[in-house]
Amino acid sequence: MPDSLRIGLIGHGFMGRVHSLAWQAAGRAFDLPLTPELTAVAGRNPETVAQAARSWGWASFETDWRRVIERDDIDLVDITTPGALHTEIALAALAAGKHVLCEKPLANTLGQAQEMTAAAEAASARGVQSMVGFNYRRTPALALARDLVAQGRLGDIRHIRATYLQDWINDPEFPLVWRLRKEQAGSGALGDLGAHLVDLAHFLTGRRISGLSALTETFITERPLAQSQSGLAGVGGAERGEVTVDDAAVFIARCDGGAVATFEATRFAPGRKNAMRIELNGSLGSVAFDFESLNELLFHDATADSAVGGFTRILATDPQHPYMRAWWPPGHGLGYDHTFVHQAADLVEAIAQGVPPTPSFADGLYVQSVLDAVEASAAAGSAWTSPSWNEGK
Amino acid sequence: MPDSLRIGLIGHGFMGRVHSLAWQAAGRAFDLPLTPELTAVAGRNPETVAQAARSWGWASFETDWRRVIERDDIDLVDITTPGALHTEIALAALAAGKHVLCEKPLANTLGQAQEMTAAAEAASARGVQSMVGFNYRRTPALALARDLVAQGRLGDIRHIRATYLQDWINDPEFPLVWRLRKEQAGSGALGDLGAHLVDLAHFLTGRRISGLSALTETFITERPLAQSQSGLAGVGGAERGEVTVDDAAVFIARCDGGAVATFEATRFAPGRKNAMRIELNGSLGSVAFDFESLNELLFHDATADSAVGGFTRILATDPQHPYMRAWWPPGHGLGYDHTFVHQAADLVEAIAQGVPPTPSFADGLYVQSVLDAVEASAAAGSAWTSPSWNEGK
Amino acid sequence: MPDSLRIGLIGHGFMGRVHSLAWQAAGRAFDLPLTPELTAVAGRNPETVAQAARSWGWASFETDWRRVIERDDIDLVDITTPGALHTEIALAALAAGKHVLCEKPLANTLGQAQEMTAAAEAASARGVQSMVGFNYRRTPALALARDLVAQGRLGDIRHIRATYLQDWINDPEFPLVWRLRKEQAGSGALGDLGAHLVDLAHFLTGRRISGLSALTETFITERPLAQSQSGLAGVGGAERGEVTVDDAAVFIARCDGGAVATFEATRFAPGRKNAMRIELNGSLGSVAFDFESLNELLFHDATADSAVGGFTRILATDPQHPYMRAWWPPGHGLGYDHTFVHQAADLVEAIAQGVPPTPSFADGLYVQSVLDAVEASAAAGSAWTSPSWNEGK
Amino acid sequence: MPDSLRIGLIGHGFMGRVHSLAWQAAGRAFDLPLTPELTAVAGRNPETVAQAARSWGWASFETDWRRVIERDDIDLVDITTPGALHTEIALAALAAGKHVLCEKPLANTLGQAQEMTAAAEAASARGVQSMVGFNYRRTPALALARDLVAQGRLGDIRHIRATYLQDWINDPEFPLVWRLRKEQAGSGALGDLGAHLVDLAHFLTGRRISGLSALTETFITERPLAQSQSGLAGVGGAERGEVTVDDAAVFIARCDGGAVATFEATRFAPGRKNAMRIELNGSLGSVAFDFESLNELLFHDATADSAVGGFTRILATDPQHPYMRAWWPPGHGLGYDHTFVHQAADLVEAIAQGVPPTPSFADGLYVQSVLDAVEASAAAGSAWTSPSWNEGK
Repeated sequence: MPDSLRIGLIGHGFMGRVHSLAWQAAGRAFDLPLTPELTAVAGRNPETVAQAARSWGWASFETDWRRVIERDDIDLVDITTPGALHTEIALAALAAGKHVLCEKPLANTLGQAQEMTAAAEAASARGVQSMVGFNYRRTPALALARDLVAQGRLGDIRHIRATYLQDWINDPEFPLVWRLRKEQAGSGALGDLGAHLVDLAHFLTGRRISGLSALTETFITERPLAQSQSGLAGVGGAERGEVTVDDAAVFIARCDGGAVATFEATRFAPGRKNAMRIELNGSLGSVAFDFESLNELLFHDATADSAVGGFTRILATDPQHPYMRAWWPPGHGLGYDHTFVHQAADLVEAIAQGVPPTPSFADGLYVQSVLDAVEASAAAGSAWTSPSWNEGK
Repeated sequence: MPDSLRIGLIGHGFMGRVHSLAWQAAGRAFDLPLTPELTAVAGRNPETVAQAARSWGWASFETDWRRVIERDDIDLVDITTPGALHTEIALAALAAGKHVLCEKPLANTLGQAQEMTAAAEAASARGVQSMVGFNYRRTPALALARDLVAQGRLGDIRHIRATYLQDWINDPEFPLVWRLRKEQAGSGALGDLGAHLVDLAHFLTGRRISGLSALTETFITERPLAQSQSGLAGVGGAERGEVTVDDAAVFIARCDGGAVATFEATRFAPGRKNAMRIELNGSLGSVAFDFESLNELLFHDATADSAVGGFTRILATDPQHPYMRAWWPPGHGLGYDHTFVHQAADLVEAIAQGVPPTPSFADGLYVQSVLDAVEASAAAGSAWTSPSWNEGK
Repeated sequence: MPDSLRIGLIGHGFMGRVHSLAWQAAGRAFDLPLTPELTAVAGRNPETVAQAARSWGWASFETDWRRVIERDDIDLVDITTPGALHTEIALAALAAGKHVLCEKPLANTLGQAQEMTAAAEAASARGVQSMVGFNYRRTPALALARDLVAQGRLGDIRHIRATYLQDWINDPEFPLVWRLRKEQAGSGALGDLGAHLVDLAHFLTGRRISGLSALTETFITERPLAQSQSGLAGVGGAERGEVTVDDAAVFIARCDGGAVATFEATRFAPGRKNAMRIELNGSLGSVAFDFESLNELLFHDATADSAVGGFTRILATDPQHPYMRAWWPPGHGLGYDHTFVHQAADLVEAIAQGVPPTPSFADGLYVQSVLDAVEASAAAGSAWTSPSWNEGK
Repeated sequence: MPDSLRIGLIGHGFMGRVHSLAWQAAGRAFDLPLTPELTAVAGRNPETVAQAARSWGWASFETDWRRVIERDDIDLVDITTPGALHTEIALAALAAGKHVLCEKPLANTLGQAQEMTAAAEAASARGVQSMVGFNYRRTPALALARDLVAQGRLGDIRHIRATYLQDWINDPEFPLVWRLRKEQAGSGALGDLGAHLVDLAHFLTGRRISGLSALTETFITERPLAQSQSGLAGVGGAERGEVTVDDAAVFIARCDGGAVATFEATRFAPGRKNAMRIELNGSLGSVAFDFESLNELLFHDATADSAVGGFTRILATDPQHPYMRAWWPPGHGLGYDHTFVHQAADLVEAIAQGVPPTPSFADGLYVQSVLDAVEASAAAGSAWTSPSWNEGK
């Protein structure tokens, strides 16, 4: 029997629930060198956290996250709180010698992200590992896209075209949940959705954004205060408050290596539910993806016989496709939660092997530096702005 | 804390694995009145069944399925063996007072299915429940389609158009696995794929097939004997054996209530991986579905403004859609395994409430009577044939 | 300057209009050896035929089709009347030494089709050519599909799956236009839509149907009598009459060479406007087509690298694709009428070269023999029926 | 019989050919108040222009465009030359009292466009009409989108997302045709493709771009000199020359009324042939369009029942849809050339009624001012730039 990896989960909202299922399923689906154990979950409200522990299979619960870090029977701290708490928790966990999985975006400010990355790098030298939760990297179709790029099947990347479109706050009466408040969420569509796009563009192509010009917009500036919230939803009251984050962010960019990129993140695209779309055009081919059809990758090979050329719809569900050895016969698709199972499995593998997992906190810091540049450019009338990672180069 | 429902799983192939994950996840995702416990798994090979128990989280294992039925600590027997064993196991389990979940098709012959149904009905009178595993009924998009039909949104159903296309044995060197042998599988594409179509047409419309004309075909009549097999795949040796099941089956039919139907099941459609497609045309509208895009339902409302008319691609992922209250925000799709989680959850609910779950063994018998009629028609030069359920009416 | 080919058009309904535009455009788009001239159009109503001549560019008009055949200045007679008139006109035209283009289906009965074919073959020996207007053969994407089959890219054809779905008479108050009366149209969806499918299956694969089992249905048996009609539409009055043709026809079939086929033609598929769909599965690959996306062909090559395998959406709009040398840059699609331009151009080429054009009347007779077998099977309780072309073999 | 409108076409390249077919077809398809006559075509090469006249049905030809303007038997001058000649020809034609149809983009520089607009407005006062050839406005699906916006079905427009993707010069050995030389074409992807997007965004929403930030890129800076060219294609020689236009242009923008917009035009998207895509998100709904599927409009109505909500694929081919009264039954799609037929028909109607047609030269000037701002912003390191139409406001 393999040894255990004892997990302490902090936060029991929508993300906490997804992580709970993933920690359980990872060991069943994959043949892992360490068996994840759901040891403790932490949350401030004793009733709801107790209920979460019971429903989701956690052996115990805590009402103070610090207790999880103090406990000897926890090997890994999994952070799914709002961004405002990421830094304090992660620093404490790393200092206590716990591995850390931290939801994205890494932090609410660049300074926090830098501090976290420094701590993660120091911890890594002591064998303590960190990962930031850009789960979409573990979508089989996107991992396949990355492999195609890495194999040179697209040639030189010339265009990155990334949009993340949702519509869940299109209704002006949708309440002011925490994701719409800057002090908790850091930013709006930019950090929630745009962060995924920036990370994926990096993951898929290996290229980073060297400069950009951006604008952001808040279409609905006042909303009913939230009386309660659950998942992404909430219930509003009679009082109203100010929306302090962006509803949408768009930017154009140049990448190291020469690619031209466009990015758009919005929560105001009626009819688009989770349209995280990315297309890459290279000198030798193209790929296109839409999370609303998450099992499909479109691929065009410009070097093939043009008489039968076009985009091939690859169902990335064959055993030979990334992660699919663990799952079902071809055509029996996966869902959103499988990306978290893959994330958990990859993290367990990395910890067992003692190699730093990816995406690292440094990868998260890179994303943060781009988000920071977007906000800076938007504040400066769309002036061209270099992300901090690129300064001095 | 709710009481337990102690599960004994028989069979640890591909389907056994899917069921294992589903029993675990059901209680995490849904708020169930009984908590499924993975008590025992049975299989003939002590090494592989022990490994399956360990990997998939079963508390114990048996090498004789009869032991599972004898054990006092088992409440429900879940049958995932090849069809040839369904009858004996199900009859024994019901006789022992265990609830039964039996994979589809219910049996390899009509006589067996009748015997099982009689036993299930007798058991039901004693509070022992049975269900046949037509998991696709629990695809949210298909459950939504059923609701639309039930609400009258399609009017009178005039056309049912159902195809189930795969390609996994297109290669003539693919080995002779058990699914290609009549004595184990009963039939080929007909029972494996066609059975789902026949059940879905019934589930969606409430209409049953009153007569049909069919033909079946075996394109590759000899294959390498299988030396080993896993999931749907296998490894072939030098010797060859005869394929004794159909590679493809097609039939046209009339349904009670007047609809005209076409059905096709094949494993020889290169490029189609799991294209279980069904379209219904009614006097007031249409729906269309393809399992390769399992989160989508296409719906056309013929009563709406035709200037903006057409098929609407509904992402059946909103909280208001069937089963989705348990899962993710809109657009964050589900996969194949979720249909088994829903099946498990619905079965637990039915057992807790003491109501007969659906699809019942009688529903499975209906499907069997249609499969039987297909084989009879095909054997009689496509002569028009009434399924036995319809005889004497 | 090339010589002229002087056209006499009989019929000035919807089809007459499409043919008029095609005769004009063919010489502009293609570099033809003979220049089509719009010499005369014939119709019974002097006012409407005069108007048609003026609007559509015909140099003269006649109110008796016999006059067109008598005229010395007509080289080719183009028949677009209801099917009931095809035979008499075609026989007269061929006897008068005129080339003939006859709309499909060739005739309303098998006997008529046989008579026409015999006449066409006799005329062909005298250099007088005949063609039946299965225009869809000239869709570039379908011509490309035929080329792929002919090149062996699909291997042995195992499945033909063809449906033609429309919804224009779904409303029970839609009037009883000529297409719904057996004495004028011969049959309903079967001859109007199914005829195209039968011809295409033959065209694409070179295989013919050797036997079939069919059923037909008339969902709405009485409708308002049509007071006027135009295109497919019409205006109904208070009196009602009987619908004497099928609303839908479905059949399963075997083809010479071993393929299994399914066919469906219906005018009762709400939301489907012109969904003429055909899919072929062969031992080495598959193609799929839907006329509602007429510029696209889906192609799967089962011999290619399966890691990037799937259906490729070929935009059949490259200069190298069939007919596209005459048209626009890639991606600038064609429409329905272009298929008639291609048909006209191919016919002119064949006449200029003195070679028999295809589809010949014999090809039309083959289709008629299948339609006849469908009706015979449907009338005989779906009994297996061989088309007459296959008798005595 | 209606009077004639005598056309003089200048330029006989790809665009000249499209216009020729459109002038012929317009009077056949639509019931026009004036009948277009193909009176004269002009081109410098006597052989090719004579051939064009013969093939395309022009009654005469000229080798000096000035002759066309001098001729008394010409009512309308249709300019399809490279952009460098637009101004001189249009000014001369207007001065001679001829109506003018000028291909897009209106001119190669803003100054030229201003001069042309002033001349057009002066001419309009004398009853001489002008139109710029943004043919895509006449795509039925896009005209339908405009109607939906105008009816308020989308509410306030918040996002415009427009991309025009092609791949015809992706091969670095593709020769240096005139469209790649600044002195003839003005700009590259920006003016050729981006101009359509800027016009469509304006047409669809009625909103104009008030400021933008842009970047442009030339991926392949040197190519073989073209020895000959035809359509978009050409044949290259051994010598090479500099590419002096952009290969790609991207920009973000704000519109009057508050919408946020993104634009991308590129000829370096392998596999994208003519992917002119535009999506609008408003407070009440969304529309999306892709010219590679030109007969389809996707529409989401956010006010409708969300249980069956999603994007509806409207086949914009019903008689009630814009322009479709002239064409075929539902589902029988149109092609690229039909947009030019509609353009010709609308222009003839406007001239007959004595009302200024749209898009006017002022509309073309607006587009030019945006293209000019894009180039200015790109040259200034993506600095935020207001188009000249917006200056002083």
